[in-house]
Formats: sequence, structure tokens, C-alpha cells
Amino acid sequence: MSGLFTIALDAMGGDHGPQVVVPAALKALAEFSDIHLILVGDKERLSRELSASGGAPSNRLRIHHAAQVVGMDEPPSQALRNKKDSSMRVAVNLVKHQQADACVSAGNTGALMATARYVLKTLPGIDRPAIITAIPALNGHTHMLDLGANVDSTANHLYQFAVMGSELASAVDNLDAPRVGLLNIGEEDIKGNDQVKEAAHMLEHSHLNYVGFVEGNDIYCGDVDVVVCDGFVGNVALKTSEGVARMVSHYVRSQFSSGLYAKMAGLVAMPVLKALRRRIDPRAYNGASLLGLQGIVIKSHGGADAVAFLNAIRIARIEAEKKVPQRIDKRLEELLSREGSAP
Amino acid sequence: MSGLFTIALDAMGGDHGPQVVVPAALKALAEFSDIHLILVGDKERLSRELSASGGAPSNRLRIHHAAQVVGMDEPPSQALRNKKDSSMRVAVNLVKHQQADACVSAGNTGALMATARYVLKTLPGIDRPAIITAIPALNGHTHMLDLGANVDSTANHLYQFAVMGSELASAVDNLDAPRVGLLNIGEEDIKGNDQVKEAAHMLEHSHLNYVGFVEGNDIYCGDVDVVVCDGFVGNVALKTSEGVARMVSHYVRSQFSSGLYAKMAGLVAMPVLKALRRRIDPRAYNGASLLGLQGIVIKSHGGADAVAFLNAIRIARIEAEKKVPQRIDKRLEELLSREGSAP
Repeated sequence: MSGLFTIALDAMGGDHGPQVVVPAALKALAEFSDIHLILVGDKERLSRELSASGGAPSNRLRIHHAAQVVGMDEPPSQALRNKKDSSMRVAVNLVKHQQADACVSAGNTGALMATARYVLKTLPGIDRPAIITAIPALNGHTHMLDLGANVDSTANHLYQFAVMGSELASAVDNLDAPRVGLLNIGEEDIKGNDQVKEAAHMLEHSHLNYVGFVEGNDIYCGDVDVVVCDGFVGNVALKTSEGVARMVSHYVRSQFSSGLYAKMAGLVAMPVLKALRRRIDPRAYNGASLLGLQGIVIKSHGGADAVAFLNAIRIARIEAEKKVPQRIDKRLEELLSREGSAP
Repeated sequence: MSGLFTIALDAMGGDHGPQVVVPAALKALAEFSDIHLILVGDKERLSRELSASGGAPSNRLRIHHAAQVVGMDEPPSQALRNKKDSSMRVAVNLVKHQQADACVSAGNTGALMATARYVLKTLPGIDRPAIITAIPALNGHTHMLDLGANVDSTANHLYQFAVMGSELASAVDNLDAPRVGLLNIGEEDIKGNDQVKEAAHMLEHSHLNYVGFVEGNDIYCGDVDVVVCDGFVGNVALKTSEGVARMVSHYVRSQFSSGLYAKMAGLVAMPVLKALRRRIDPRAYNGASLLGLQGIVIKSHGGADAVAFLNAIRIARIEAEKKVPQRIDKRLEELLSREGSAP
């Protein structure tokens, strides 16, 4: 029998706040019988939203009041100093005080990262958390990190990302030895920069199932389970992918509406196009983990709708079930003790 | 009246060699009455390919013999030392000796870059050439550089890329003041790395039409004309885009063949899907420029077919017509003299 997992939701965060988070919470309760949810935010507003959505507080859903909200553009330092009773901060506090096994927020990334680091602290051996998410690939999906928390990552940082990413993939996808690739370029005669070359050397001599260098297009092949890169590079890769996908779907739409024949073909093709859209629906991949913390923090896209936010809750649930931070902690302890006992 | 442009083609380079280059050359001669082409490579092989393709030497097409070929995986240093009579080297030599206004090669990028630098030299004020290509965007296209020639670019390098990219966009797209964006990330609280922040400062105080930071998805919006980034980052962004596009088109194909209804819908939708494919055909964007050299060198994709290679010839032609290296040289001279006369 699986246990019971409590997940705290920053119900005021994101572009849409309770309007999205409350319906997503009700969907999650219906989907999973083994979770409890805590809606964190303005009590009155949340009660109203809850009854409007046909839900009600129960032994599986409660509201935890928080008077403040972190703005989507608020500088992290300001959020940290002035918003101690924000829905974001209180949700993270609930994880810290073990009243929740995980939290989910669609609030601003910088503030969430700063708050999570300050409240939960990083695991021993981790300098700074990394952001990881699953990306759809031809055969399944690929976990990629870091996606923007760390710029100018050293070889040692890249190595830490690899260890954490491998543990996460192993836990959530039930893989014995996830294939780990290091993102590099093939154009330059000397191939790659010093950090990547040094990290490759470290990974070759590690316990990981390191498969070598991969290039940008390999992210979408599904031939590796984890792709490791600097946060600047990873963030650009992710945003670029979103741009391409948006352009292509714009073209599909405009092509199927450019003339009478195209419109009729579009009607015939509609079920196929709908199935296609479901298959590459970015909402099915919403939810990035802040990895390397002493607790589970999931970042939802700020513009997420209820379907997308629900997916972020799913990720929080599975990471709680698989005790991802504890697994990473254990692995790091082994590695640190091995280093300590090295001749 | 426009002038006459002579373009040297490395006819042995790429995955397919003369089989692709010769038909592309014949297409180019048919399309442009103002170009002369020189096929560089094994004379006998090229003569045979030429007659097989229904062409013949003329006053607009000649064969220039070169006995060697640079292998697609050959290390640049080895190509430089041992392949002085390679089709690649000889094609670049023709530019050097002003027997050609530009050259095109589908040979390996590292060797082409090393050969071009060694033979042609960089322009005064340029440390190292950059690779630039046009990328399809919702409204037109975006020129992006560097795409892999320079890793660990300094702020000064990024500034040089911006100057060169702006001149190229201005020349080939007839723009008075191309909008230049600097690729950055929005996730990190401190936003970006030191190089990018320093380059932004330099660009704000430059003569360029600098529009500020852009993110990965902006490459495909067409709201900027030039996107500037480090070569590692740019190469990953480009390869990632290829991966996404390939995955999406795979999904489209497989979705339209998954069952009887889908197959019939696919038949009906075929003309629309074909028009769509034409619109996002990567072959229409084949051809990257090695910018910052004292001469025009265009790199075609190694796997290019004749349609794609033809596009690389088109790019060589327009850069020759617009005298891109001379324009960049003039601009750099102005900038350097301004610096020299600064108080």
C-alpha cells in the first residue's frame, strides 16, 4: 500500500492565482486518492473560489491562510525580506516544518528559488539548486538540467547536476542506470569549452551510466535519460524549443485556413490534428523541480492553466512518493565519504 | 546594371560531393545570369558528373582541378598541414587570389574554418570569425551568430559579433538600422552572466540599433533582425531547434498514418501538408557565412541536397554583390579610428 502524501499549493501564485490552482487541486484530489492538499493564500478568496468550483474543505483539502502575495516581477531579495507571510513563503515553510511532503508554486522563479534556498537549505555537497524538467522526446522523455538557476557552471557543478539528475530519473522512471549525456557542440575544432571537457573527465570516472557528449538535437531523440548542461545554455535551449514549437503550430493553423480547399481539408483532418496537439501538448510537461534542496519544491509555469498545474501536482506527488531529496542525499553522502576515504 | 560574380564551389565536399554540387551548380547558372561558377575538385570525376547531369563547361562554368579531398571527420590541423591541394583549400585560395568573389563548401566545419582563417586572414579588429545563418521566423527571418566557432566568448567578442551581424543584415536585407538583440535568460534572479551584462553595456553605447535582451523564443518571433550570442549557446540553440522540428514532423507523419481515417484525412490534407513543408523547409535556409574574414566563405550543411546547396550559392552571390566583407571592414575602421581619437 502506498502512503499518504500532503502537498502544499501556493494558491495565489502565477498569472491566474486561485482561478487555476483551485480547479487543479480538485482535479488532483479526484485523480489521486492518496494525496492531501493544502491551499495556501487568502482565506476568504480561496473559500469563495472553492465553492464556485463546486468543492469544499474536507479532511483531504484544507485552506492555510497567508496574507501576502509575491508579485510576478518582484525582485527575489525584496520577496525574501518583505513577504514573510506570502502564500509562496508559507507553502515552503509547510515543507520545512514537515506539515507537507512537497509544495508547488507558479510564482516567479527567482523569488521561489531564493525562498526555497533560504528556508529549506541545500543538501550537503550541493552548492546551489538546479532546475530540472522532463522534455518530450521521440521515445518517451528526457530530463534536462540546469534550466536557468546557475550561469557559468563549473565542471564540479555539472557533475553535481549529473548526480542529481540521474537519481531523479532513476526514482521517477524506475530506471536502474539512467543514461546521462553531457550537452556539447560538435562544430568547434577543439569541441566545447573547458568546463564541459573537465566535467566529461569527472563523469567518465564516476558511478554514473555516462554515455558521453550529446548535441542539442539529441535532447529530442530519447536516446539519453538525462541531459546535463549549464543553466544559461539549458534555459536558451528550452525557450528556443518553445519558440520553434509555437512557430510550427502557427504555420499548421494558418496553412489549414488559407483558402477553401485547405479549410475543408482542415475539417477532415481535425481529429488527427487534435490527436497531434494532445501528443505535443506542453501542458503535459508542466512542472520543473528545484533539485538539491532539503525538500521538494515544484515550479509550475506562470501562465499554466488547470490542466498544466495539475501536472505539476502529479510531479510533486511522485517525487514525494519516491523520496527524491532523501535519495539524492544518500547518494551524495556515499560520494563524499568515498572522496574522503580516497588515498 | 549589376556586376558579374564568380563563385568557387568545393565540389568534393559534404556527404554527397559532386553528385549534389554539380546539379546545384547547373540550377544556379539557370537561375542567375550574372554568375560564373568554378567547380573545384577531381577533374575527371567532375567532367563525368557534369555530362551525366546534362551540363558542359562553358564561359560561365569551368572545372579547376584539385587532387585531394578533406574528409568529413578529418581534424582541422591535419587538413591544414596535409591537404594543400584539397578541393576545399583550392576553392578558398581562389578567393584569396581574387579569381573568385566567394566560395561555398559543404566540407567539415572545423577544417573549413581553419583553412579560411589561415588563407584569408581575419579583418583588422576581428579576433576570430563567427558563424552566422538566417533562421526562419514568424515575420521573415532572423540572423543569428555565433553558431559554434567561438566558445567562452568575451563581452568584446559579443560586441564584434553584433557589429558584423548588423552589417550583414543591413547589406543582404537592405535594412537601414537592423534591430540587434543580445541572447540572455530571464529565469535567474541576477539575469545572465557577466559577459552578457558587459556586452549589453557596450551595445547600449554603440552606433547599433540595439534593442536589448532577447530570450530563446524570440529567435522565432522575427521582432529582431540579429540575435547575438556565444558560439556554444548558439550552436545548442540551433541543434535543439532542428531536434524539435524533426520530432514535430515525425509526429505529423505518424499521426496521419495511424489508422484508416487518419490515412484518408492525410490524403485529403496532402496539398496543405506539402505547402506547410515548403514553408518550413530547412533547405531554404541552408548556408552559413563565416563572418569576419577578408573574403566570403559560405558553409553548406554536409548532408545538403542540390536544392539546399543551391541556396548556399544564392547566399554567396548576394554577399558578393553587397560586398559584405568590405562593408564590415569599413565599419570596423570607423569604430577603431573613433576609439583611437577618443579623449
